[in-house]
Amino acid sequence: MRAYDIIEKKRNNDELTSEEIKFFINGYIDNEIADYQMSAFLMAVYFNGMTDEECKTLTECMLHSGEVMDLSPIKGIKVDKHSTGGVGDKTTLIVTPIVAACGTKVAKMSGRGLGHTGGTVDKLCSIPGMNVEISRNRFFDIVNTVGCCLMSQSGNLVPADKKIYALRDVTATVESMPLIASSIMSKKIASGADCIVLDVKVGSGAFMKTKEDAISLSKIMISIGKKFNKKVIALITDMDIPLGNAIGNSLEVWESCEVLRGRGPKDLRDVSISLAANMLYLSGKGTIDECEHFARSAIDSGKAFEKFKEMVSAQGGNLSLIEKSDYLDCLEEHKFEIYSDDDGYIFKMDTEKIGKAAMILGAGREKKDDIIDYNAGIILNKKTGDKVTKDEVLAVFYSSSKEKFVEAEKIFKEAIKFDKNKPEYVSLIQAKITLDDVQIF
Amino acid sequence: MRAYDIIEKKRNNDELTSEEIKFFINGYIDNEIADYQMSAFLMAVYFNGMTDEECKTLTECMLHSGEVMDLSPIKGIKVDKHSTGGVGDKTTLIVTPIVAACGTKVAKMSGRGLGHTGGTVDKLCSIPGMNVEISRNRFFDIVNTVGCCLMSQSGNLVPADKKIYALRDVTATVESMPLIASSIMSKKIASGADCIVLDVKVGSGAFMKTKEDAISLSKIMISIGKKFNKKVIALITDMDIPLGNAIGNSLEVWESCEVLRGRGPKDLRDVSISLAANMLYLSGKGTIDECEHFARSAIDSGKAFEKFKEMVSAQGGNLSLIEKSDYLDCLEEHKFEIYSDDDGYIFKMDTEKIGKAAMILGAGREKKDDIIDYNAGIILNKKTGDKVTKDEVLAVFYSSSKEKFVEAEKIFKEAIKFDKNKPEYVSLIQAKITLDDVQIF
Repeated sequence: MRAYDIIEKKRNNDELTSEEIKFFINGYIDNEIADYQMSAFLMAVYFNGMTDEECKTLTECMLHSGEVMDLSPIKGIKVDKHSTGGVGDKTTLIVTPIVAACGTKVAKMSGRGLGHTGGTVDKLCSIPGMNVEISRNRFFDIVNTVGCCLMSQSGNLVPADKKIYALRDVTATVESMPLIASSIMSKKIASGADCIVLDVKVGSGAFMKTKEDAISLSKIMISIGKKFNKKVIALITDMDIPLGNAIGNSLEVWESCEVLRGRGPKDLRDVSISLAANMLYLSGKGTIDECEHFARSAIDSGKAFEKFKEMVSAQGGNLSLIEKSDYLDCLEEHKFEIYSDDDGYIFKMDTEKIGKAAMILGAGREKKDDIIDYNAGIILNKKTGDKVTKDEVLAVFYSSSKEKFVEAEKIFKEAIKFDKNKPEYVSLIQAKITLDDVQIF
Repeated sequence: MRAYDIIEKKRNNDELTSEEIKFFINGYIDNEIADYQMSAFLMAVYFNGMTDEECKTLTECMLHSGEVMDLSPIKGIKVDKHSTGGVGDKTTLIVTPIVAACGTKVAKMSGRGLGHTGGTVDKLCSIPGMNVEISRNRFFDIVNTVGCCLMSQSGNLVPADKKIYALRDVTATVESMPLIASSIMSKKIASGADCIVLDVKVGSGAFMKTKEDAISLSKIMISIGKKFNKKVIALITDMDIPLGNAIGNSLEVWESCEVLRGRGPKDLRDVSISLAANMLYLSGKGTIDECEHFARSAIDSGKAFEKFKEMVSAQGGNLSLIEKSDYLDCLEEHKFEIYSDDDGYIFKMDTEKIGKAAMILGAGREKKDDIIDYNAGIILNKKTGDKVTKDEVLAVFYSSSKEKFVEAEKIFKEAIKFDKNKPEYVSLIQAKITLDDVQIF
């Protein structure tokens, strides 16, 4: 078997055999196939896609390139969630304690972020004292006693994905459906949970630009999950507007706590309840309606917030900031208000640009080694569909580097389009995909 | 400017600016852009192609990556030819002395072959004493006195093409029209001639599988030529049948001499006269009909063969073998006859497989450092359209490694398809493309 023939076969849009995919991926991991052959192959996959069978074999190869977590020391069914990533997406912080408060275990590994804003691990690290680099046994222990734990992803999970993703990232081959599906699913399956709820973002700021693409991606991932005996549901959610109002690490922790306190923005609360309900449903807690009721009650009763604090404490985090509903007041001296130059309705927000503005303020990393300013970010006062008058405050910026405000403001304002007319309402949860059903909302 | 953005732009099928192409190609030559980014780019070009403007800029970048030959020490108009490569194609050996005998200078640089059979340089080297590695001044000198010279391509001509071609060769990105066009034309333009006749092969054994593709490729190359003030004509010729009957280095030299002696196979003679006539026409020797007459007369009068011997002598070659019309008899003890297993018409020949059989016999290189057996090869007794009876001799193999005969015979026989009916005649020269005209024959 020769690497050349496999690249050529994919280029000619012929289906690869399992043996060919294994030869190619394993050869790449073993440094027998060069980066330049892999990148040509990835670009051919970008153009010609992969069949379901090819995609499953690819996922399997990646999965077995490293450790596969054995969560059997944790009693009961374990559920996991994954979001394809979006600006202001802090749902993991909210759904994890909700689900645990309802009696289903969440043993979740999360990553650091590269790009607009931090990943879940970065957000957690904005809580003073919070430890996400804990031992395997301590992790099992916390999940068994508290019901949930959020730890940093092990370096040995799916090393093939790490190597291939690093190459995709510099060769413009990230945006390929089978490559995205196998990358996500290999990591989720390696993380060891029994059930997985996928939050697939759709919109200008997401990898999937259309609902159709998001549905296709979901179907591939669900079908991969089935092959590995994982129950998988996907929700397609809108990413044409940032989720919630807070963007930036400690700001997002604060907003998550607000939702757990029964407050916070409605969009964020609704998506969180829906994700949590589907996680509970997959773990067999009841019908989807019952599970939605459980999730709501966990918030309203305060049990979810208590569970969050319990988890943070178990991981060494300080609770004082978390308990401050008026946390933003502490950041007064680092703030900068952005005033509208226009009258009218906000017609469109370019979430990617808004994420970039937050990154400039210090909320994210442009390069791998950049240091995050945990308190940097944006609180949106107005979002798509809101009426705004000139000189009204659109948003508040936070940063310890005041010299960044002007540059961030410029990009932020470019991201917002006004119109005389109110835009049509787009439902936040656009579809739900299960193994044998597609519901469009 | 970032390499990533240029790959992404090509991937998205947006036209690249001159600056972007220059940045990318020059960055690659300077080792600032990695192989893995270039191979992803090349695969994106394979799928999305290039506009005429992009292709011209690419050619320009490659051209200026090394030396551009200055042929001004040679008096008068210099013409060159190029064939996109085919099994049994020895036309350079024939047209060069014809054109020189008619008074137009041919200062031609040729390459060694990798693959089925040797390149022109390898064929020449089968003539004992023949020197193709001559100094620049000696080259000019021979062209000025004899009228033609065939030397080995300088290593410093278009190094960018060498680097990019080596990468294309291992990443399944060879078969891309703009990449083929810019590769050929950058080398032709760097070689310094004023006029160029392109012999674009079409058929199962060629890069271009259809006449339409061959015409498109020709148009791109002619348009690139115009940008660099080169007069270019392309002939589209059939490569569904090997050209002539001889395949292999000394065998092809012998067959070329046979054509120059006014003998030899009709197909080879016809293509050679047509190529030579177009070269003479481009150099301003007369109308195309007049030039065809000049070419025929150069053969019939014996002047072309005299010119060939003059050139070989000037380059140190021994004339004794060249003068032997019965040269094949010298190889009697290394020959092996191939008998037909079938009755009927030869309906189809897979030229690529026939070339492979010749390579196995020792006529070509599989790897760069393989040593060529100059006397190895195949003489075809029958070709497509010929009627064959069982046990008739299809071909004669020559090799100093007799143990190769069986393996070569197996591949050779796979290459030949028989049928009860005579196949339709396909004209050898299928089209002629000039700057403003396409003639289909």
